[in-house]
Amino acid sequence: MTEPGQQPAVIALLGLGLISGSLAGALRKSSWQGDIIGWGPRAPSLERGQGLGLIDRFSLDLSETVAQADIVVIGAPPVATAQLLPEVIALALECGSPIITDLASIKGYVVSKALPHYPNFVPGHPIAGSENSGVDAARADLFEGREVILTPLADTSPQALASIEAMWTLTGARVTHMSVSDHDAALAASSHVPHMVAYALTAMLGEDQLAPMKHGGGALRDMTRIAASDPVMWRDIALTNRESILTAMDAMAVQHDQLRTLIAEGDGEALEALFAQCRALRREHDAILNPMPDPDRGIS
Amino acid sequence: MTEPGQQPAVIALLGLGLISGSLAGALRKSSWQGDIIGWGPRAPSLERGQGLGLIDRFSLDLSETVAQADIVVIGAPPVATAQLLPEVIALALECGSPIITDLASIKGYVVSKALPHYPNFVPGHPIAGSENSGVDAARADLFEGREVILTPLADTSPQALASIEAMWTLTGARVTHMSVSDHDAALAASSHVPHMVAYALTAMLGEDQLAPMKHGGGALRDMTRIAASDPVMWRDIALTNRESILTAMDAMAVQHDQLRTLIAEGDGEALEALFAQCRALRREHDAILNPMPDPDRGIS
Repeated sequence: MTEPGQQPAVIALLGLGLISGSLAGALRKSSWQGDIIGWGPRAPSLERGQGLGLIDRFSLDLSETVAQADIVVIGAPPVATAQLLPEVIALALECGSPIITDLASIKGYVVSKALPHYPNFVPGHPIAGSENSGVDAARADLFEGREVILTPLADTSPQALASIEAMWTLTGARVTHMSVSDHDAALAASSHVPHMVAYALTAMLGEDQLAPMKHGGGALRDMTRIAASDPVMWRDIALTNRESILTAMDAMAVQHDQLRTLIAEGDGEALEALFAQCRALRREHDAILNPMPDPDRGIS
Repeated sequence: MTEPGQQPAVIALLGLGLISGSLAGALRKSSWQGDIIGWGPRAPSLERGQGLGLIDRFSLDLSETVAQADIVVIGAPPVATAQLLPEVIALALECGSPIITDLASIKGYVVSKALPHYPNFVPGHPIAGSENSGVDAARADLFEGREVILTPLADTSPQALASIEAMWTLTGARVTHMSVSDHDAALAASSHVPHMVAYALTAMLGEDQLAPMKHGGGALRDMTRIAASDPVMWRDIALTNRESILTAMDAMAVQHDQLRTLIAEGDGEALEALFAQCRALRREHDAILNPMPDPDRGIS
């Protein structure tokens, strides 16, 4: 096992997809020189990951995998992460208590399943992704300039937290800390509801007899891109962060309705002021939202 | 003046900005070899356009400019286009009736101001743009693979229509025809309401105390990019295509509310079906929405 200050020798990825595969690729490109091993319920994506040079070896045996690892990364959507977590914790307790972290975009639901109590579990969420999925979409630069939010619990081990922070720093990400509930509320607004809005907009366009999507330009390209995201993953996000999403959807509906009123009333002055305020707000966040000249674009 | 089958020798751009400057750049790159002249109320952007090689010369005198032109392109947002159009038509009637076209994103409002009656007016709308504006944002490839919608009226001259179609074809655009009212309804759904949705989303994020924009990733980048668009132009679009926009905003609100209900009820099956349907719809339009590997991206 890892001593303080020592780099972990073995990182195990449980599930190999876009995000965990990109983590592997980024670690490969970094100064870190340990082994990356894979586990999954089926061989194909693991064989593919080995073929791509992302993992050194893999196993279909979870206990064997956890037993070899200094850090175990559960690379799965929220529901699968929550399902796997108790089993991984139980195995970890039997073999030297490796650090466990996850990548799930919802923390409250996952943390509620982190039983039994395990101080070496560090909940995490890299803010990076794509409407594509699978290990073939993995990119070593996916996390460069992106935020990785860690949501340590009151009794999370500071050493475990520092190890996971160090791992993400190697990928070029910015690591921040938030509470579990703030994370879920902020992400509902910054990610989950934007997805719901893209879905609602796409559904609206699909029902329009004029087939307006055929006449779309750059605006529509961007406003509907994420409506091509994985339906199962987003179903699960909608269900597992339900309360925060409903709150933010209601706030969105209020804004939509207020804007509708301004247009119906022909209030040009208020419209211009609102649009100018939005422009300023968007530009203020340009550096965060566009960390690289061409982020995510190669995979769309 | 241009005879049938003959290429126009002089194209006049009234107003030099992102779209008209990109048209000039695209014509320069094409096989067309005529002169491009500019007019505007003030010299600076015209001098800049001349410096960039987009126009051959310019004048601040509108009648002199129209008198020299085979094709007059009014390059302005809808309200300015509608204001300028009667004056340009009056001048055109005095000097050989050159073809007039425009670039405004709303046709009903513009066409209602196209007086006196002028069969050589061809209302047009290139579906291309950027959240940036001004001649410095012009790009010769802005129209490649993009749609340009022409909305000829019942008495629009077929020769004038063919000339404008030929001009746009030189830029690499796909030229289509629609009725004025279908155009305005389709564009409300495909462009104007997506902008309103981006504004509402950005306003919602701005009011959230957790500052969720700080935690945005690629999804939020795309869903808020166009909220940085020109506030005055979008105020005018909201006001001049009001009825079609309100109709499409109401359709959007219905979809948003239906999606909210599915989430509140925890109806995973219906959510997954809806999301899968949206993914299919978006993918079906990928070729239209992403005509080039990296459209519009260099200017964001």
